[in-house]
Amino acid sequence: MSDSSAGGEWEPADDAPDGWPVALRGVTESVIATKGPNDLWNFAALGLHAGDPVTAQTYGNTRTRRNFERREGGVVQFVADPRAFVDAALTIREAPEPVLPSADAWVEVEAACVGSRTEGETTIREWELTPDESAVVREGPTTINRGFGAVIEATVAASRLGVAGFDDAELRDRLDFLATVVDHCGGAREREAMAAVAAASDWERPEN
Amino acid sequence: MSDSSAGGEWEPADDAPDGWPVALRGVTESVIATKGPNDLWNFAALGLHAGDPVTAQTYGNTRTRRNFERREGGVVQFVADPRAFVDAALTIREAPEPVLPSADAWVEVEAACVGSRTEGETTIREWELTPDESAVVREGPTTINRGFGAVIEATVAASRLGVAGFDDAELRDRLDFLATVVDHCGGAREREAMAAVAAASDWERPEN
Repeated sequence: MSDSSAGGEWEPADDAPDGWPVALRGVTESVIATKGPNDLWNFAALGLHAGDPVTAQTYGNTRTRRNFERREGGVVQFVADPRAFVDAALTIREAPEPVLPSADAWVEVEAACVGSRTEGETTIREWELTPDESAVVREGPTTINRGFGAVIEATVAASRLGVAGFDDAELRDRLDFLATVVDHCGGAREREAMAAVAAASDWERPEN
Repeated sequence: MSDSSAGGEWEPADDAPDGWPVALRGVTESVIATKGPNDLWNFAALGLHAGDPVTAQTYGNTRTRRNFERREGGVVQFVADPRAFVDAALTIREAPEPVLPSADAWVEVEAACVGSRTEGETTIREWELTPDESAVVREGPTTINRGFGAVIEATVAASRLGVAGFDDAELRDRLDFLATVVDHCGGAREREAMAAVAAASDWERPEN
């Protein structure tokens, strides 16, 4: 560590993988648009596992899985609006165009199924994603808003309510805590997104 | 909502307040560098409350408070490295220069004390921050990594261990959960940052 550094060594950013518009590390939460049999684009959450190739998993017989099988791909996007993430993850949302207004970047991907396993009654498919056309729409410095992170965690917790293997009471306690973080630290868009989590699940926000 | 939108109305970004290098909403977590009596810069976490003017609070007789009183300001920065945030928040860290290598943006601020109150034995001071020189160093699209958010939450939880008014067992349960999120979703920098949380507190990571 140099004397002028207070944060240890730092490389400005991970390199974006070839063909991808953003750097990836660990699991990056994205929104995937896939075209359905009605020719509308369906939006869902998709966790991208960094690696060469980048991979993702579908859980059960979802629209994303069926559309990947049918169309062999979709449009991955990186959204700045927590409400867009909540709607993709927790509701059925379709549109005639695949790129959301709040996408800071997007990339068309080919999806090839490279594995399948079963956990309980759920079939988990693993997909290799190969990037094609991509674009960066909007850039800015990193900022940290705990309310934004709380909405993402709340979306994950809400999606697990009633699912075998998860403790409902623990998930609800976590959601109650995350709601207080949104109240204290979020902006208008986080509060709207947290209301959307409540509307799309059977969790109810505690009174303040 | 237009038919082509799947995420509702969207304005690309909040406007950055006059003189600030980034948009602010709710509470934005930043790192503040303040110059101490030894002429070294001290780094600490500082939550910026959006508004006109932007405000922040110091809790107790911290170095940031004393240096604000002594120097009437400091350098606010927006870091992309979770380890830099952990070190600023949980350790005493000083350097000869005020801007961290992982700062995506920074702004010199004047700090004026505009209020003071007491909670328990802690004196909380409120500061109005007036921006001066600023710079954007690095920009990119928004990406969502649950591990990054988990490190920030873990830093907050660890800073409350042993503090009156907080439930230690609840904080430790939360830290255990956040460690699993970092393991599953974080990259190398989040794992390093979570290890730094453990090293700087008396919380111990559970075995995997």
